[in-house]
Amino acid sequence: MAAWLTGINTLKIQPFKLPSVLGNHEVRVQMKAVGICGSDVHYLKTMRCADFIVREPMVIGHECAGIIAEVGSGVTHLKVGDRVALEPGISCARCNFCKEGHYNLCSEMKFFATPPVHGSLAHQVIHPADLCFKLPENVSLEEGAMCEPLSVGVHACRRAGVGPDTHVLVMGAGPIGLVTMLSARSFGAPRVIITDVDEYRLSVAKNLGADDTFLVSTDIKDADKEVSALQELMGAFVDVTLDCVGVGKTMTTALKVTKAGGRVCLVGMGHHEMNVPLTPAAAREVDIFGVFRYRNTYPLCLDLLRTGRIDVRPLITHRFGFSQKEVEEAFETSARGGNAIKVMFNL
Amino acid sequence: MAAWLTGINTLKIQPFKLPSVLGNHEVRVQMKAVGICGSDVHYLKTMRCADFIVREPMVIGHECAGIIAEVGSGVTHLKVGDRVALEPGISCARCNFCKEGHYNLCSEMKFFATPPVHGSLAHQVIHPADLCFKLPENVSLEEGAMCEPLSVGVHACRRAGVGPDTHVLVMGAGPIGLVTMLSARSFGAPRVIITDVDEYRLSVAKNLGADDTFLVSTDIKDADKEVSALQELMGAFVDVTLDCVGVGKTMTTALKVTKAGGRVCLVGMGHHEMNVPLTPAAAREVDIFGVFRYRNTYPLCLDLLRTGRIDVRPLITHRFGFSQKEVEEAFETSARGGNAIKVMFNL
Amino acid sequence: MAAWLTGINTLKIQPFKLPSVLGNHEVRVQMKAVGICGSDVHYLKTMRCADFIVREPMVIGHECAGIIAEVGSGVTHLKVGDRVALEPGISCARCNFCKEGHYNLCSEMKFFATPPVHGSLAHQVIHPADLCFKLPENVSLEEGAMCEPLSVGVHACRRAGVGPDTHVLVMGAGPIGLVTMLSARSFGAPRVIITDVDEYRLSVAKNLGADDTFLVSTDIKDADKEVSALQELMGAFVDVTLDCVGVGKTMTTALKVTKAGGRVCLVGMGHHEMNVPLTPAAAREVDIFGVFRYRNTYPLCLDLLRTGRIDVRPLITHRFGFSQKEVEEAFETSARGGNAIKVMFNL
Amino acid sequence: MAAWLTGINTLKIQPFKLPSVLGNHEVRVQMKAVGICGSDVHYLKTMRCADFIVREPMVIGHECAGIIAEVGSGVTHLKVGDRVALEPGISCARCNFCKEGHYNLCSEMKFFATPPVHGSLAHQVIHPADLCFKLPENVSLEEGAMCEPLSVGVHACRRAGVGPDTHVLVMGAGPIGLVTMLSARSFGAPRVIITDVDEYRLSVAKNLGADDTFLVSTDIKDADKEVSALQELMGAFVDVTLDCVGVGKTMTTALKVTKAGGRVCLVGMGHHEMNVPLTPAAAREVDIFGVFRYRNTYPLCLDLLRTGRIDVRPLITHRFGFSQKEVEEAFETSARGGNAIKVMFNL
Repeated sequence: MAAWLTGINTLKIQPFKLPSVLGNHEVRVQMKAVGICGSDVHYLKTMRCADFIVREPMVIGHECAGIIAEVGSGVTHLKVGDRVALEPGISCARCNFCKEGHYNLCSEMKFFATPPVHGSLAHQVIHPADLCFKLPENVSLEEGAMCEPLSVGVHACRRAGVGPDTHVLVMGAGPIGLVTMLSARSFGAPRVIITDVDEYRLSVAKNLGADDTFLVSTDIKDADKEVSALQELMGAFVDVTLDCVGVGKTMTTALKVTKAGGRVCLVGMGHHEMNVPLTPAAAREVDIFGVFRYRNTYPLCLDLLRTGRIDVRPLITHRFGFSQKEVEEAFETSARGGNAIKVMFNL
Repeated sequence: MAAWLTGINTLKIQPFKLPSVLGNHEVRVQMKAVGICGSDVHYLKTMRCADFIVREPMVIGHECAGIIAEVGSGVTHLKVGDRVALEPGISCARCNFCKEGHYNLCSEMKFFATPPVHGSLAHQVIHPADLCFKLPENVSLEEGAMCEPLSVGVHACRRAGVGPDTHVLVMGAGPIGLVTMLSARSFGAPRVIITDVDEYRLSVAKNLGADDTFLVSTDIKDADKEVSALQELMGAFVDVTLDCVGVGKTMTTALKVTKAGGRVCLVGMGHHEMNVPLTPAAAREVDIFGVFRYRNTYPLCLDLLRTGRIDVRPLITHRFGFSQKEVEEAFETSARGGNAIKVMFNL
Repeated sequence: MAAWLTGINTLKIQPFKLPSVLGNHEVRVQMKAVGICGSDVHYLKTMRCADFIVREPMVIGHECAGIIAEVGSGVTHLKVGDRVALEPGISCARCNFCKEGHYNLCSEMKFFATPPVHGSLAHQVIHPADLCFKLPENVSLEEGAMCEPLSVGVHACRRAGVGPDTHVLVMGAGPIGLVTMLSARSFGAPRVIITDVDEYRLSVAKNLGADDTFLVSTDIKDADKEVSALQELMGAFVDVTLDCVGVGKTMTTALKVTKAGGRVCLVGMGHHEMNVPLTPAAAREVDIFGVFRYRNTYPLCLDLLRTGRIDVRPLITHRFGFSQKEVEEAFETSARGGNAIKVMFNL
Repeated sequence: MAAWLTGINTLKIQPFKLPSVLGNHEVRVQMKAVGICGSDVHYLKTMRCADFIVREPMVIGHECAGIIAEVGSGVTHLKVGDRVALEPGISCARCNFCKEGHYNLCSEMKFFATPPVHGSLAHQVIHPADLCFKLPENVSLEEGAMCEPLSVGVHACRRAGVGPDTHVLVMGAGPIGLVTMLSARSFGAPRVIITDVDEYRLSVAKNLGADDTFLVSTDIKDADKEVSALQELMGAFVDVTLDCVGVGKTMTTALKVTKAGGRVCLVGMGHHEMNVPLTPAAAREVDIFGVFRYRNTYPLCLDLLRTGRIDVRPLITHRFGFSQKEVEEAFETSARGGNAIKVMFNL
């Protein structure tokens, strides 16, 4: 059984037929924990996300972990019963992007719940063994599922060069902003400040370990004033800004608040186009790095969780079972936002 | 004597008093070749450039080379009679930017003809010896002066990571676009294509060694069509785009035409703000690097000229002497544009 | 038919049975040009190379190009009749090395003629389509085969950071030294000097485009004297040294001749252990980079050949057909050295 | 008054005359805390260290912090009474190394207590203001003095690319090994193991936060066995090895224990030459990075101390005043080793 997206606002638990024979390097996974991502909600509400359109009924879900139920003949590092986190994207392994290690840019990527590829909110899935990462003993299945959103934060911090001497500003305290903040901390950043338009989210961020928080407006006219206030609050150069919102005002703020020679990372995908003061930023050699999903992050994520350098458990605010009613309720909870950060299914 | 900017459209050759005693690490240079830069013309026409405003009469000029007339007591690598190119910016050497090798970002930079610092269109100047680079025997004084604009191209190619496997698009065939194109070639780029709105400029670029040229419009509506045409003309992924114009349309084109994982360098400073599709570019991990002047480029520029990997002489289209009349005429020639690329004074 | 290594000094042309059905992403290649590498000769003479031992009869050869004879059902970028260069190593695509783009370090690599994997000196081979690179029209099959040794030079130059401002010393003018020298030139190095103990080899290097050559001894006592002479001959700091010999004396010279902050690349695999002045080199921050085969080099190699930035044809000094007698003679020619640089089979 | 090294084993507290007038960018510092370094002891015992020879009486000491007593006319960021840590090396700021940010490689470096430059074990010294770093309120003068050895560890970790996904092996648990271990932790390394030949030192390392320790022998024959044991103890690939000893056995171990594609950093300067298996390491692309002092480390060190990410106080095992007798006793204590890690003067 799986949760099928069959139309706008319509999710149905229906049978999901999988091949009975595994490929040599595949495994069958009994799914145990699946989280809801903003993109899942977006697909539910509009049947599309960015340029991807759902044209046929599609199984939803991609943040997941489970237990190995069967292994292909060539699989040596996993055995039945192993608990694993699943990296959701299968790249071609043959193009130049893949061979150069940038497989997240592979144009033939098959990614859970990115149409027309089915997702993983299902009792069982078949997946390449090398994309199933064994959980350390002290890491739970739910934490395993959290490796997916955490990977976005980790990849952003890598691209932005976060380290022990980068003072970091994170813009946006939604789920991605929060995992990005946690990642920056674990990369050794001496001081991480986070902004949002919502006081409740900021209080969550503070509890999760932000050094400081700052309430911003949505009015572009406040940008310069906020830039000054943020620089003062940092008490040091803002070396790296991670924009987890991605609209004109946040990027304008990011480009202005970051020190000459610093780096801005655009993580959030708010608006397609935006009006931004690119020239003065370029003239201060503030570089802008983009982020698309992630690559080679799962081993690090699991190690961060195992050693306690990151604790994602407080992010899981709501839990649901896998009945028709609960699935609907879970998505509704996630869509409402409010005090929901991560909504998790236990299958 | 020096060329003083005393008001809008007013340049006067007047006495320029220099200290009679050199510092230990200073030299006195008899200036021999000074080029006119777009910023010089901008100051002449408006008394300002970006945020810099000319409030007091200021000697103009910063692209220059000359002959050592006197050396300070601590100078060992230069002697009277040596021909040198002068790097125009004196950084503080004490701030973190300077200590980390990013001295072009030093906030205390004193740069020729950036108010309130005097420039170098003068019979004599005093300058730190370490910013005076001895010309190889086969490099002329005029070529020495050309190291200044060439440095911008070299720095842009370094920041953009141009090398033997980067197919390069240069946008804009003005003086900076041309030196950037020449730099990209010398960095080993297999194919360099250049665009402009002006056919004459494109023909100049072709003669200077561009592999291909492409005429673009100023209409943003043509961007998508031009992107496709440019990708086809390249016959390979566009790995690096160097935008030497810097307006909304060129950046939009740059962000779209560049391959996933590629790099865009914003060299030109056309418009302060611009409306650009930043999110889809970021989602393809197209990174944007800014350029402010240059750092550590003079030794490389001189080596490129010495070995013939770059020939800047065809860029010098007009030459003038240093009389009041000729100075006025030279700036007028440069301002008119037309077939003038680089206007050079011989003092 | 294929050339089988069946014992020391014994090569036999014998039938080589290939599967009759291709995998989806495989192609069948009619081999047309195969070069002899030093490792092939080493296997012939000793049945081993480094830690690899030939325990069963093995088809020899790995520098090769041919014509597509059949394509698997999933192959889209190649068709029957296409001329291709074959990258000889098949990595697992599943381990971290592969996923991070460092597939040359994959521990499950299957590489032509590295026991127990068969090589490509055969009329036909089956190979993954993504490791077959279509030759540009103006690149011959022999040049295609030369991409293999050229790749070593290209990878070394990448690892050593060769570029337009690195003055390069290459040690050893054997086949690998020569392709490394050619690569350094194509990466924009302003000056490339090459050393060897043999005057004939140096004359070849000079003809191929080395800026200068220098005859060295095999006596470690000459190292200091040669270091001084080489530094003077360079006329600039030695920024990068590429040691294509790999014995105590060459590494000692490399570590001493290279400037503080420079890079040494160990390309040659002469001696397992060596006595070297590592501490004073480290105290000048001279870094040492190793090289194992190559990764992601074929597209660049073909582009370098297509554009004429590198001409490998003069390296091919001897040609043989594919009869039993000619195979023996060809290997004997390669083993003798002398004026043989690259010995090539035309099948 | 200052501690003068006047001959082998001879230190005398004698007057130290300083200029009465400061340069514009200089400050006068009342010295308050000075640590003893191994090189200080080496000078005392042999009047030399590496290639540096003490030919004239020289004031010793270079790990120091003090209080600003007077500031030059151009100093703006410091005032009388400020507590500061002193970076001991004054580079020329004019050579290419300095301009490129690699000032530690400057050939004109003037470094405290590197002959013929006087050191800082004195009541007062004059120093460039930009090399005096104001201590945060919660960082003591002794901790300020500890920034000097800590800088070596920080620089080594930077050069070796230590980060949240590098499992680190530190070889040698002397003072430099310990600060390197602490630095690796603060850079986010998930697991840091340290080796030594001395059980006491290992117990100190364990108390300071090493994840695990391992007793090694001095016998090269044990290297292979120890390599296996260390790899097992790490429970993951050894991504980075920092050799803080620098003899044949430690480097042999480092080259073998580190994963393919990993990095070895040679921090310790034990033996000038060593016999090492360089070829097999290079063939696994294990790169070797050298370390000479440090650059741009003081701001990061102070920030690491301020935020508690590193606590260097447990390293200070002995304290002495600044009388003739105490100076002799302090150096004797440091020379004896035993349970002395860092011996500190309070002036």
